[in-house]
Amino acid sequence: MKSYDVIILGGGPGGLAAGVALSQMGKSVCLVQESEAMAGGVCLNKGCMPTKALLKAAAVYRQARESQKYGLRIHPEAVNLKEVRQVVDGDLQKLRMAISSILAGIKADVLYGIASFISEHEIEIKKSDGTTETIHGEYIIIATGSSPRRLPFADFDGRYILSSDDMLLNTELPQRLLIVGGGAIGCEFATIYNSFGSEVTLVETESTLLPREEAAVGNRLRQCFEQQGITVKNGLSIGHLEISKGQVHVTYQGSVQKPEIFDKVLVAVGRTPNIEALKLDAAGVATDKGFIGVNTHLQTNVEHIYAVGDINGGLLLAHGASYEGSLAASNIVQGNIHDIDSTQVPRVVFCHPEVACVGVTKELPDVKVVAMEQVPNGRTIVDKVQPAFLKMYYLEDTGILIGASMIGESATEIIHELTLAVKKQLTINDIRQMVYAHPTHAKNVLAVATGSV
Amino acid sequence: MKSYDVIILGGGPGGLAAGVALSQMGKSVCLVQESEAMAGGVCLNKGCMPTKALLKAAAVYRQARESQKYGLRIHPEAVNLKEVRQVVDGDLQKLRMAISSILAGIKADVLYGIASFISEHEIEIKKSDGTTETIHGEYIIIATGSSPRRLPFADFDGRYILSSDDMLLNTELPQRLLIVGGGAIGCEFATIYNSFGSEVTLVETESTLLPREEAAVGNRLRQCFEQQGITVKNGLSIGHLEISKGQVHVTYQGSVQKPEIFDKVLVAVGRTPNIEALKLDAAGVATDKGFIGVNTHLQTNVEHIYAVGDINGGLLLAHGASYEGSLAASNIVQGNIHDIDSTQVPRVVFCHPEVACVGVTKELPDVKVVAMEQVPNGRTIVDKVQPAFLKMYYLEDTGILIGASMIGESATEIIHELTLAVKKQLTINDIRQMVYAHPTHAKNVLAVATGSV
Repeated sequence: MKSYDVIILGGGPGGLAAGVALSQMGKSVCLVQESEAMAGGVCLNKGCMPTKALLKAAAVYRQARESQKYGLRIHPEAVNLKEVRQVVDGDLQKLRMAISSILAGIKADVLYGIASFISEHEIEIKKSDGTTETIHGEYIIIATGSSPRRLPFADFDGRYILSSDDMLLNTELPQRLLIVGGGAIGCEFATIYNSFGSEVTLVETESTLLPREEAAVGNRLRQCFEQQGITVKNGLSIGHLEISKGQVHVTYQGSVQKPEIFDKVLVAVGRTPNIEALKLDAAGVATDKGFIGVNTHLQTNVEHIYAVGDINGGLLLAHGASYEGSLAASNIVQGNIHDIDSTQVPRVVFCHPEVACVGVTKELPDVKVVAMEQVPNGRTIVDKVQPAFLKMYYLEDTGILIGASMIGESATEIIHELTLAVKKQLTINDIRQMVYAHPTHAKNVLAVATGSV
Repeated sequence: MKSYDVIILGGGPGGLAAGVALSQMGKSVCLVQESEAMAGGVCLNKGCMPTKALLKAAAVYRQARESQKYGLRIHPEAVNLKEVRQVVDGDLQKLRMAISSILAGIKADVLYGIASFISEHEIEIKKSDGTTETIHGEYIIIATGSSPRRLPFADFDGRYILSSDDMLLNTELPQRLLIVGGGAIGCEFATIYNSFGSEVTLVETESTLLPREEAAVGNRLRQCFEQQGITVKNGLSIGHLEISKGQVHVTYQGSVQKPEIFDKVLVAVGRTPNIEALKLDAAGVATDKGFIGVNTHLQTNVEHIYAVGDINGGLLLAHGASYEGSLAASNIVQGNIHDIDSTQVPRVVFCHPEVACVGVTKELPDVKVVAMEQVPNGRTIVDKVQPAFLKMYYLEDTGILIGASMIGESATEIIHELTLAVKKQLTINDIRQMVYAHPTHAKNVLAVATGSV
């Protein structure tokens, strides 16, 4: 049986970051992933990257549809999702090649197949040719990620009731699309299909969109979405879904109204950890509400077994997984000296307008808030986009910045200035004394910090 | 004669920032500007804002032309510059109203007309109705800005030989456009007209584009421009321009070849200070190579007279002028305790791809450089854009970041993270330990800082 310093289960951002870090620190590593086609994990194949490719096409298409407001005459043909998907496939192929060359560069062993624990230190891999191989690891990092969660009363069928995975492969543009779930995935798909010309209805059980963020963010995003023609319903859950004559009839919980009719329903109500095949019992690894529980060093209850990324139910963000992967690697090599600090991890949604938050964004005692619901900025006028939303939180006594929420153009880029400020405990006065380039969207930060325009 | 604590000459970003700051600090202020139509100065009327409006339209049009690469079929009609210009005019009108409301808010006196010194403390204003008014100021801030410089041997005619002011009003799309001058203005117009479908030739006397920045920036930008079909000629000067049969025949200095033929020529060879009408002699204010010389407090040789913005020949950036205006205001009120620090001022160009630099970007002893000519980033693949260029400079002994140059998507926004780092003397390790959101362009900073992908 081959033996390694570290076995990593899963080749997404978490597993890959751990593998690169460990191999740079001289450890022998075996990376096990489901198949070569899933190199890069959910992020590359079914998450961040294909959605970003679709969002870019959506932005180009949306602006073409709105060409008049720029003084242009541009005529877009109806979107052919098959053609868009071909381009996206080409992109993903290039990205997979990049991952392969990273893997080749670190010289880790890579095995393809389904991994299961057979003991605390042994992993059995079932390969696609039916054979199995068992390997031994002094340490094991679980980074097998997550999959779309289904509604308890409606299975995915890939045509009428779709998961985000299905939706990425979908080639029929629905006239009426229902999106169930107003989290990051639901909001990004709302932008994609609204831009492509579908009538989009977005339903979220909680009282605001993006319910992981403060309510003001969801409320402002709802306003923006509604201005774009997206129907948003908060505080509403699906009661019943019925497929009849090629349409989905949807009844909301507690509603006595006639069912609403849609051509397709995207269910984006959360993620479920990829845990079953792992046979965690064989190693005695405990779960917590279905996810694998970890301490601040990212160790599971079995101290030589770590869990990073979606599987531990924490950040559910690709870069969160990368961060955790590197951290677990360092903890393995250096003896658990690093604690995870999720306040340093920016939280981003690439819908239109973009949403980005970092740190603590709660109104607490001894915390001051500066905010503008709609920051006046001439750049939004010439760009013909909605004014940005920005809220910053700092400690009253020291002025130290502890968090920020923003919605607007390039928010997912601009958030990094504030991420650095939060990380380095810089103050609101440091921000006020900055010189911001004109005319950028980033200068909203100055406008809100100083309360002037 | 009415008397003020401070008279400000010019209502562009420099004058306006000074006026707002002084009025907030309780000073009586008179702001003198040429005309109501020029509220906001060059930036709003003939600079930053109309070019950004055109650049946005250009981006929408360019992406529509390139729709196939996103799997879309979009058909743009030929650009009608008259229609684009109407939209831009509407934008500027809104922006002028915003300026008016700022001016109303600060309750400064605003006078319209041409201002001249008649003594060290007295300003005469010639109004458009032919009357004059003389006012007295304890302090005076000169912020009258700059105008396009002409070629010594060719006047602007507004049709064949155009300044950037003319170019903003131009409604004829030239088939062949020559741009003389590869600075910020020349590069932004190259993007605008190349996107709109003109054949653009960009000629710069110096050996690289954007010659105020390090050569690597200009060289990479040239590559990007050439990939977009812009013809770039460096180290070449115009020898002779001749208009014949509705075309401009251009001969380069030292060239024995046949003249090249263009439909229009944009001359963007620098700015000349708006100094003549001021009659500086009456106050004894000295000039330095045409511009008004200032010390680090922004005082001219006459200590109660300050000069901020383009007129002092320093940064030639709108936000540089705002920064200087606020600084001069503080120095007037607090007694010259603030020194200007131009290393804190980001330098941005909104061409495609965007260019942004900050701080010291020179290879010096004891300075380490990390750089990638083309940063690998999956986001550029799904966005179908050129890979970014990024170079960062830090002190070898302490790791303190002292400057950065970047070219790529959202560079003008992303630069603010590094601007904050430079200002607060953060280190390259601080950057390396940041968590960057995936998949953003901002994460190029991490890739280059760590030397990995």
